[in-house]
Amino acid sequence: MTGTKRKKKNVLWSRMKNPHCEDLKQWGRRRLPVLEWALHYNLKEDLPPDTVSGIMLAVQQVTQGLAFAILSSVHPVFGLYGSLFPVITYAIFGMGRHVATGTFALTSLISANAVERLVPPSSQNQTAQSNTSVLGLSDFEMQRIGVAAAVSFLGGVIQVAMCVVQLGRATFLLTEPVISAMTTGAATHVVTSQVKYFLGIKMPYISGPLGFFYIYIYVFENIQSVQLEALLLSLVSIVVLVLVKELNERFKRKIKVILPIDLVLIIAASFACYYTNMENTYGLEVVGHIPKGIPSPQAPPMNVLSAVITEAFGVALVGYAASLALAQGSAKKFKYAVDDNQELLAHGLSNVISSFFFCIPSAAAMGRTAGLYSTGAKTQVACLISCIFVLIVIYALGPLLYWLPMCVLASIIVVGLKGMLIQFRDLKKYWNVDKIDWGIWVSTYIFTICFAANVGLLFGVVCTVAIVIGRLSRAKTLSIKNMKEMEFKVKTEMDGETLQQVKIISINQPLVFLNAKKFHTDLMNILQKENASNQQLDDTSKCERNTLLISLSNGSSCNEEASQPHSNEECSLILDCSGLTFFDSSGVSMLVEVYMDCKSKNVDVFLAHCTASLVKAMKYCGNLDSEKPFFFKSVPAALSNIHSNKVRQNLSKLSDQSEV
Amino acid sequence: MTGTKRKKKNVLWSRMKNPHCEDLKQWGRRRLPVLEWALHYNLKEDLPPDTVSGIMLAVQQVTQGLAFAILSSVHPVFGLYGSLFPVITYAIFGMGRHVATGTFALTSLISANAVERLVPPSSQNQTAQSNTSVLGLSDFEMQRIGVAAAVSFLGGVIQVAMCVVQLGRATFLLTEPVISAMTTGAATHVVTSQVKYFLGIKMPYISGPLGFFYIYIYVFENIQSVQLEALLLSLVSIVVLVLVKELNERFKRKIKVILPIDLVLIIAASFACYYTNMENTYGLEVVGHIPKGIPSPQAPPMNVLSAVITEAFGVALVGYAASLALAQGSAKKFKYAVDDNQELLAHGLSNVISSFFFCIPSAAAMGRTAGLYSTGAKTQVACLISCIFVLIVIYALGPLLYWLPMCVLASIIVVGLKGMLIQFRDLKKYWNVDKIDWGIWVSTYIFTICFAANVGLLFGVVCTVAIVIGRLSRAKTLSIKNMKEMEFKVKTEMDGETLQQVKIISINQPLVFLNAKKFHTDLMNILQKENASNQQLDDTSKCERNTLLISLSNGSSCNEEASQPHSNEECSLILDCSGLTFFDSSGVSMLVEVYMDCKSKNVDVFLAHCTASLVKAMKYCGNLDSEKPFFFKSVPAALSNIHSNKVRQNLSKLSDQSEV
Repeated sequence: MTGTKRKKKNVLWSRMKNPHCEDLKQWGRRRLPVLEWALHYNLKEDLPPDTVSGIMLAVQQVTQGLAFAILSSVHPVFGLYGSLFPVITYAIFGMGRHVATGTFALTSLISANAVERLVPPSSQNQTAQSNTSVLGLSDFEMQRIGVAAAVSFLGGVIQVAMCVVQLGRATFLLTEPVISAMTTGAATHVVTSQVKYFLGIKMPYISGPLGFFYIYIYVFENIQSVQLEALLLSLVSIVVLVLVKELNERFKRKIKVILPIDLVLIIAASFACYYTNMENTYGLEVVGHIPKGIPSPQAPPMNVLSAVITEAFGVALVGYAASLALAQGSAKKFKYAVDDNQELLAHGLSNVISSFFFCIPSAAAMGRTAGLYSTGAKTQVACLISCIFVLIVIYALGPLLYWLPMCVLASIIVVGLKGMLIQFRDLKKYWNVDKIDWGIWVSTYIFTICFAANVGLLFGVVCTVAIVIGRLSRAKTLSIKNMKEMEFKVKTEMDGETLQQVKIISINQPLVFLNAKKFHTDLMNILQKENASNQQLDDTSKCERNTLLISLSNGSSCNEEASQPHSNEECSLILDCSGLTFFDSSGVSMLVEVYMDCKSKNVDVFLAHCTASLVKAMKYCGNLDSEKPFFFKSVPAALSNIHSNKVRQNLSKLSDQSEV
Repeated sequence: MTGTKRKKKNVLWSRMKNPHCEDLKQWGRRRLPVLEWALHYNLKEDLPPDTVSGIMLAVQQVTQGLAFAILSSVHPVFGLYGSLFPVITYAIFGMGRHVATGTFALTSLISANAVERLVPPSSQNQTAQSNTSVLGLSDFEMQRIGVAAAVSFLGGVIQVAMCVVQLGRATFLLTEPVISAMTTGAATHVVTSQVKYFLGIKMPYISGPLGFFYIYIYVFENIQSVQLEALLLSLVSIVVLVLVKELNERFKRKIKVILPIDLVLIIAASFACYYTNMENTYGLEVVGHIPKGIPSPQAPPMNVLSAVITEAFGVALVGYAASLALAQGSAKKFKYAVDDNQELLAHGLSNVISSFFFCIPSAAAMGRTAGLYSTGAKTQVACLISCIFVLIVIYALGPLLYWLPMCVLASIIVVGLKGMLIQFRDLKKYWNVDKIDWGIWVSTYIFTICFAANVGLLFGVVCTVAIVIGRLSRAKTLSIKNMKEMEFKVKTEMDGETLQQVKIISINQPLVFLNAKKFHTDLMNILQKENASNQQLDDTSKCERNTLLISLSNGSSCNEEASQPHSNEECSLILDCSGLTFFDSSGVSMLVEVYMDCKSKNVDVFLAHCTASLVKAMKYCGNLDSEKPFFFKSVPAALSNIHSNKVRQNLSKLSDQSEV
């Protein structure tokens, strides 16, 4: 015993000596998950699969980077940077092992809004076509990436701020139906935005409410300007991609080698385009010049921050919601834990840090994460390895991408969205499981389609909360089943001695403003129903009972007693509050009201299993009868109190009458 | 029996003959409560108290009408109209018997915002000072009342629309602390707005965020321009009012006559002002010219509607929230029912109809309603009688109010707000009853003070909902008490036959996205804790038990059995879902996850008392083991199933071994 005491003392002592050091270490380990897993990294077992995964991921990162940069209305090269810096940051701060951060369709779609609004294409002609010192890009392109980087910066700051106020805990509000509907809707938007590349139509940027429909209206109005070459190439690409991916999926277990069809298609299409000179012959749109290297970091323009606040919130919320779902999925599949707040911090820092390197807003993408699963990645090392290959592309292979046709890129994007679009299947599930969730899915999808992903997300969350509040306010508050059981028990127990009716009802809900009224009606209904059903029985058996009771006292005759009004019959009610987990002032005043109502109906009320705070609140709130005890530790204690009271009353009756 | 059948047939027949007529009658009775009470009005008993109350109410209506019109930044005469038309409309459509509609401080404060924004005082000089045909009022005054009437119109339309979509049911969201804090904050605003009259300072209209503080800053900066006459008169008025009202209150039961001190003070102050010619001698501000009569109705200017939409929402919500609280208070006190939707309709129509008669937005006022209580009014007839006296003032006595000093009017207003300001006492109650409600009160009050009543109301509601959502997501989901009781029962029941451990746990909460995670952790905690506590006991007693069991089978020795891993020990879990009132897809998938988790831990799970929809959802969602039955009607049914399974297993074991 003294040994353990001394040990404890030592521990305490060492803590007191350097308390900050220990705390800092713990805090660091919590905030830098890389320290946790990097130390236990198993080079032999984990490195080979991580390397394979990393190479496959790099292919996806490069294609998606180019495509999502174009979706963001910025120069494609910035998408390559966006596949590099956020990935490194997330690998350090993030906890999801299979979460592939980088460019993301939904956040690109949102930031495109800001870019097109603040730097419209018309301003290209106004500004001098002088090339800046940065990579030889035009002023116009630098202004556009400036806005996108500002969105990324502010979005990241918002995410970090949410982490600081511990808003990660509120993520239970982002329910599955809402996220599923929002991402499906956003994927529909992305597909729509790629339609112009499929068809080779030159088209202005269309956004705003109902912009989705205006795009299709524009397409149908300009259907004659469709480039058949582009359409053909896209169709071939899509068919090849879908077929090969399906075959990959089916024979994955047998062959164990996956054909990187994206990479093959990119190389093939680029070569075909280069040799047939499609750009000039057919006027096919290609990716174009991609400069080599990475420019030196530069702060995003702070003067546009106030103008992009809506988009920044959209990026912060939508990006986080989609990413968290992926991290949680990974954690569930591989049985580890993910801290919601740490994820917020990781994505926030990814966005803030990358914004200094000309990056568009980033988040985790479903397609890439699914790729990591299927290629057997083990840790974030796979993502870091992909960064090496992205760096090679940036420094060496970039210019070769010049000939990649836009329609092939669009096909790769759309086929990559399969995972999101397939979520339409959820509709059937929700229809069978919960019609209300089905309704939320459909309405969130419609809102996302008609407005934007952030509007849809907000609508979905508000709708979910409103519906659960409505349902809670109608849910039954009393456990009737328990009541009946208990009442039966009590009746048989006490039958022989007194005929006082005792009802025991458990409250099995918190008692708050939501359900206080319902609680009152439920309780009054039970009391009245019981009274009504007992009335007949009472009236007929009262005489009998009274004779049994009153025969002792030799008092008033049976008829007299039976003519008494029913309300005078004494009755007791024990409320078992063990299920009353919490309460607010409405709940307390409703309990007091119940006490008063019951008193006026000559029903004694007793509370059992009350918490100390409830006792205090009730005592403060109501003019409780100070003579009768009201709160009891348990139901049996309340019962025995009623019992002893009854005995005392009978005794005093007897003594009264004997005095007479 | 045949008689009742025939009767029923007749009723059905008559219904089928004129179904619309019956429905219409019922609908009319529901929507026109006046039909209900006017027919049963007891002239002898109710008319005398109603008349007395009506006269007293008229005094309040006139003074408050003048004051609140000035608070609304419109000519005082419009306040008199506002004490007439809404009252008549409410008497027809409203259900609250003691609800005195009319001009209201809070809605006046909100509509003043619109008036001062759209028709600033500076525009008075710009517009030609030509008097319009309406009552000889200037164009400027007519523009101002036009804006106020537009706010009233749109606010009323919003209230009627809320009634149509049955939003009255959502009024449980307007909790007591929020309404109390919002009205107290608004009353503070009203007091602040009257400060300039107390001190006789000429002051520009100040509003907007933190306007409250800017007013006091302005006052302190211009403290040298205080009119001592005004200050003196206000102080005397306030002291007299408070004293006499206090005495009235104290000796009410003895004397039964209440001194209408408001009326006395108005007459006295007006006479004093007239005879001493205070307006010119001391420059004291007086009410001024009040035209006689009522102008012909005119539609409010529809072109400003879009500009006053914020204020209209504020008037609709704040007015309704404050009025409903009064109607519910009256209903509770005099034991009748109030329909929230009908109240919305009544106040909405009051606002819409009155807006055609140059009225400012209306609502029920706490001071007047309290007056009706204390003077013993019985029905809305009291309000109608007050209308007669208001009409007399409008047509005959109006011009006599010319000399009423503004500072006296301000004193009457502020003393009349006593009921609202006294709600500061609620703070102590909430502190003792529920600290969270106390926090909501304080923060709502601060928001109301810093911004406006509508902002405060919105903040309070959002805050209340957010907190209850947070609390619900942490509330315990399982009834552990019940579990222990039941488990004990079961153990003793089954001890003799099998030693399989059966846990029965009741779920006593709805299972939705809020608490699905908590449910999982709670359940796993219970299972693990039980396992841990049983482990020791098991390890020691296992040998003993096994000898009991296995002795029958003459099989493996005790030591072998004991060395088996603990997880292989079979265990059953019965979840009693009778308290699971509703669920969503998150809840169902969590139940499936629990099933899978338990399966992997070799725990059999059974569900009892499931609703049909839950069974269907579970079957759709999870890959449930089709061999074992999973859903049972009741806990005993599940128990007997486990029992019979066990017996069968033992038998098969026996037969297996006997075959060997």
